[in-house]
Amino acid sequence: MWEVRLAKHLKADLGTDTFDLVQVPTPEPAAGEVLVRTDYLGLSVAYLEMLRADSRLPIPPWEVGQRIGGGAVGTVVRSNSAELAVGDLVRTMAGWCEYSTGPADQYPGLDPDLFPSPVHYLSQGPTAYYGMSEVAKAGAGDVVFVSGAAGGVGSLAGQIATCRGAAKVIGSAGSQAKIDYLVDELGFDAAFDYHDGPVLDHLRELAPEGITVFFDNVGGEQFDAAVEAAAPGARFALCGALATQIGDHEDRFPEPDLTAAAAKGIAVLPFSTYHTPEQVAAWTEHFSTWLSEDRFVFPHTIVEGGLSAAPQALVSLLKGSFKGNVSVRVAS
Amino acid sequence: MWEVRLAKHLKADLGTDTFDLVQVPTPEPAAGEVLVRTDYLGLSVAYLEMLRADSRLPIPPWEVGQRIGGGAVGTVVRSNSAELAVGDLVRTMAGWCEYSTGPADQYPGLDPDLFPSPVHYLSQGPTAYYGMSEVAKAGAGDVVFVSGAAGGVGSLAGQIATCRGAAKVIGSAGSQAKIDYLVDELGFDAAFDYHDGPVLDHLRELAPEGITVFFDNVGGEQFDAAVEAAAPGARFALCGALATQIGDHEDRFPEPDLTAAAAKGIAVLPFSTYHTPEQVAAWTEHFSTWLSEDRFVFPHTIVEGGLSAAPQALVSLLKGSFKGNVSVRVAS
Repeated sequence: MWEVRLAKHLKADLGTDTFDLVQVPTPEPAAGEVLVRTDYLGLSVAYLEMLRADSRLPIPPWEVGQRIGGGAVGTVVRSNSAELAVGDLVRTMAGWCEYSTGPADQYPGLDPDLFPSPVHYLSQGPTAYYGMSEVAKAGAGDVVFVSGAAGGVGSLAGQIATCRGAAKVIGSAGSQAKIDYLVDELGFDAAFDYHDGPVLDHLRELAPEGITVFFDNVGGEQFDAAVEAAAPGARFALCGALATQIGDHEDRFPEPDLTAAAAKGIAVLPFSTYHTPEQVAAWTEHFSTWLSEDRFVFPHTIVEGGLSAAPQALVSLLKGSFKGNVSVRVAS
Repeated sequence: MWEVRLAKHLKADLGTDTFDLVQVPTPEPAAGEVLVRTDYLGLSVAYLEMLRADSRLPIPPWEVGQRIGGGAVGTVVRSNSAELAVGDLVRTMAGWCEYSTGPADQYPGLDPDLFPSPVHYLSQGPTAYYGMSEVAKAGAGDVVFVSGAAGGVGSLAGQIATCRGAAKVIGSAGSQAKIDYLVDELGFDAAFDYHDGPVLDHLRELAPEGITVFFDNVGGEQFDAAVEAAAPGARFALCGALATQIGDHEDRFPEPDLTAAAAKGIAVLPFSTYHTPEQVAAWTEHFSTWLSEDRFVFPHTIVEGGLSAAPQALVSLLKGSFKGNVSVRVAS
């Protein structure tokens, strides 16, 4: 089978030469183990930090020669365990490989009928849901601003705020096509292109009553403008997943000037999360409910081409080429 | 009478040449007005910001030629109002002058028997109390770290945490004398000199269980170390009053790197306050109660020498020459 390994640590811009595609023996399941075929890989801009030797995440970055990690969904194709049967849909953390093997309890079973597609299990919803509900505590009457709103987390975060009763949800993104998408397809109340004049002007026009919740994926000017446009006591959830994004800002995580925030008593709530089982369960329940009620859209791209398409897909994701969540179809 | 005016805006270090001592006519109270003698001026490092032309506070800085403002307590010496009688103790916001006049309702009456001295009304307690109780919400079982703990706000903030049931209160200050004072006189559980090796080493030794509340008057290295030494979900109240302090750090307000804070889900809560009537009332009630129960010490210096001693007193305060709160006796 094929797997993808880290060829060298990332220094400046990400290119496909950061990865090695290597052929290795397809593993054999031992007693109590299963062989799982990787069906879809989920991608996230947070991967960028894991590719750096100087990652600032509190977990070790990936080593050169090591397989690229991350979440995936797969299908059991051989089973030496009574716990899983051939054909079962499972979650796998085996990373960028075509097949993996291990004890059955390493592969939590997934309900194939809960969602329209297995890729729904690979969304960045647990981050968006945790951030909007537990960190920002967005609810009835809130005026919510989401920066980086067309991304994997932001596109879900804005809809979550609406479903939780926000009075108004405003998004920013980097192109007119994304702006139209946010308003026309995802139901944002308003959106603007952050290249199009001062961010503060947009916010003052769109939220003259003051922002009460800011879900920040970007930092920099958008953070500063949100402080200026905030109501006293606003809650700012700073999302660590997308703050690592390559973009118009220099910092990999906001280092905000808090002077103006102090005057308004703004709560600055930086967070990052690795999708605890509780967070995944809370998101899965709400996501499936909201989808069934036609209150939610899952913005999603499936990249075709098998495992070898994964490196270029991640590069494209980090260039902002996609809207919403992105996964790679490994097996068809 | 004499009053003190701003001579020039502050650029680098504060000196007494920032001030002009000028003689002006003692004002005459009109009908409905009172004449109030200034007894004590309260001083605070927050004044530093008001002296700068480029103040980052959300209120206009003082203008050159304008009288220096700030809180004081005084005594009514003439009254053309039925609301106040000669001899009444009042609060005044007239600033650095020997006498002021205005409508009686500009001078809230104070209970002369509530505290041992009128200077108790000039403490920075409303900031400390609001920050520790309403922003950090310190309470039973919390492990609390206060930076700049020997200052006007910090010396009260640590004791407030203890009175609210904190399990442990740790302070940092800039000299061994201040450390001894914090532990021996103010009842801090532990204290350390921030010049004495890495701050993080002190915190790991003194709070191996992890800090749950940080009341930060300083920023810089102390903020970074507190993040490292914090328990998940800790609350960090960043006090804008003392963050303007001249000290070992370059920034006038912390511009923290929030990456590590994100990993622990630390709530960063910058605040500044101008002592609303509600905040003053809440503090006054608790302060008088705790003092009467012998649970609280009021760390305080009264600078003698009249109004003309005020400029040098403020310069000395900003050099860290005092412990606790500082007031100037204007009339004796």
